[in-house]
Amino acid sequence: MRRRGFGETFYLALKINPVQVFSYDHLYTFTYNTFRKIGCSQEHADTAATGLLAADLRGIDSHGVARLTGYVRLWEAGRINASPDIRIVHETPSTAVVDGDAGLGLVVAPFAMQTAIGKARNAGTGWVSVRNSNHFGIAGHHAMMALPYDMIGMAMTNASALVAPTFSTERMLGTNPIAVAIPAGSQPPFVADFATTTAANGKLEILQRKNEDTPLGWVQDKEANPSTDANILKKQGALLPLGSDREHGSHKGYALGSIVDIFSAVLSGGSYGPWAPPFPAYVPMPENMPGQGLGHFFGAMRVDAFRPAEEFKHHMDNWITRFRAAKPAEGHEKVLIPGDPEREAEQARKKEGIPLADSVAADLTQLGARFGLVL
Amino acid sequence: MRRRGFGETFYLALKINPVQVFSYDHLYTFTYNTFRKIGCSQEHADTAATGLLAADLRGIDSHGVARLTGYVRLWEAGRINASPDIRIVHETPSTAVVDGDAGLGLVVAPFAMQTAIGKARNAGTGWVSVRNSNHFGIAGHHAMMALPYDMIGMAMTNASALVAPTFSTERMLGTNPIAVAIPAGSQPPFVADFATTTAANGKLEILQRKNEDTPLGWVQDKEANPSTDANILKKQGALLPLGSDREHGSHKGYALGSIVDIFSAVLSGGSYGPWAPPFPAYVPMPENMPGQGLGHFFGAMRVDAFRPAEEFKHHMDNWITRFRAAKPAEGHEKVLIPGDPEREAEQARKKEGIPLADSVAADLTQLGARFGLVL
Repeated sequence: MRRRGFGETFYLALKINPVQVFSYDHLYTFTYNTFRKIGCSQEHADTAATGLLAADLRGIDSHGVARLTGYVRLWEAGRINASPDIRIVHETPSTAVVDGDAGLGLVVAPFAMQTAIGKARNAGTGWVSVRNSNHFGIAGHHAMMALPYDMIGMAMTNASALVAPTFSTERMLGTNPIAVAIPAGSQPPFVADFATTTAANGKLEILQRKNEDTPLGWVQDKEANPSTDANILKKQGALLPLGSDREHGSHKGYALGSIVDIFSAVLSGGSYGPWAPPFPAYVPMPENMPGQGLGHFFGAMRVDAFRPAEEFKHHMDNWITRFRAAKPAEGHEKVLIPGDPEREAEQARKKEGIPLADSVAADLTQLGARFGLVL
Repeated sequence: MRRRGFGETFYLALKINPVQVFSYDHLYTFTYNTFRKIGCSQEHADTAATGLLAADLRGIDSHGVARLTGYVRLWEAGRINASPDIRIVHETPSTAVVDGDAGLGLVVAPFAMQTAIGKARNAGTGWVSVRNSNHFGIAGHHAMMALPYDMIGMAMTNASALVAPTFSTERMLGTNPIAVAIPAGSQPPFVADFATTTAANGKLEILQRKNEDTPLGWVQDKEANPSTDANILKKQGALLPLGSDREHGSHKGYALGSIVDIFSAVLSGGSYGPWAPPFPAYVPMPENMPGQGLGHFFGAMRVDAFRPAEEFKHHMDNWITRFRAAKPAEGHEKVLIPGDPEREAEQARKKEGIPLADSVAADLTQLGARFGLVL
């Protein structure tokens, strides 16, 4: 079995799924204008559009403009405040708690990450827990904000409950992603960005569109039996924590997702576990929420708070080069470094454009019509 | 399928594997005296014995006194310095780098964790990267040091390379564990402590003793084919990252293990990736090591650097109670919170003693004979 390069997969995807291709600038303008129409300031609309499109550029289609209508619906439902007063409500030399004032997570997150970076400048590291926010797009985009400052960046968020703990039938956690971005010298940075589940919800959506089953180990049915039904979440099923089952370490994925939930929402005063607010605006809010909105957690560590930055980056280059040269398994050209596939996608899509599924393009066209915007 | 309680498993284990049971105090004294015999100070011998036995108490038999002979062999080989000058070589308000002077990791780690706690007291959080150390026992023991201070504790370490990255045949990473300890109020603390592999090496050793196969998804052979051979590490095989294979998220386990390696050894100046020093003293040291010794990484975050401690602990109690009450799958009494099984083990073993496999007891008896100590 030969691994396909990204470009090849890209064109194969075009053949299988009917798509339309748009330039980055075109989608940016459409997204920026949409955020302006719901009342965002110029600055917030720019930050939000840039954050949302970072997902499309990096090949994480489930988290990009495909979600724009979802954000607008949350605004219509009064769950997103388009002109929030985002502020620091508590701080120490290396920490802060930020209240997002129910703003777009896409706007709250960069504010909080910038706060972490500012703290790190003075104290060596900065750690910011955020409450009263909403979905923030892809975690990696925020973690990467630290890189130009020669800092390690971290970002995580809780999310609406779709994941059952090991040995449970109940959805208690979100897909709760973790991103860690580490600067290098001449090598591109190390950027890990992953859901703490075996497979993210976006992967199920792709299979649903193609009418295909999931592999065993991604989901369970409402009685915690193994399932391969890509639509199982609509039937009270659940996503499985990274590790799939107890024998393969699902208790570790469950622990990771829990840590993200606690750092993001229990530390900040957000709403945690099964009480995390749902993304679809038609789903009622949970009752008796123990905190406000979604929670996020951000970290920034100056590498020269540990050793000289040039020395660190030299060793990161060595680390990356050595791992990339690890002996590949048969049928694979090389071992990948976290961040390689997304960077390759970004390079290709900046040049060749961003493919949107026909259904996504139609949805955006309809959204635009409401606001007098043409996709 | 009914889940067995810990006590039941304990006695079942007694039946299957011939063991001898020792009191905690007895094993502590033997271990303390052994560390004294190789030249540790009273204080260091106490710290090391307490750390090593924490593994036996908490049911992680692979990391406890079963390894005492291994530590002594490293000392004999000149790889462990029994009277190290452990010191801070660089610091900022929230960070430090510690040089372990080739000391026992069991002694270096508490020094570094205490440094992190001290930093957190002043700056809100403390982060310490350690070089020139050795194996430190179980990560959870060190992370838990933060709990009495109402702090969240974190501990991780790199280790000798036994794990192949996704799509590789080469061992590049250790089992690189992560521990996170979070204080609660009336509930016991949340304590996650796990290798970033599907299964830790200790689990293979148990199967080897019983002459049994591993489940699929734990290991691969030297050509990266799936394997169930519990002895595959002796045949150039490798452990698999958490997730087992690409389809089930092994790239996430690979990323996690890499993050632990980089935070522990690239930040500090330790020896990373395939150059991490091996635990068995008979395995030659890697050539061209890019740093000194094993690396660790510790963190401490004052919870009141985010919100009042009582408020945080009240919500942790709520979090724990809610998750413990999640609907269990059929055949399971309740959903576990990370740390539950180890706490249950600790309670049982404090009362009933610590079982050692006959082979481990024989090995310790032989070790004791060299030093005039009776097991």
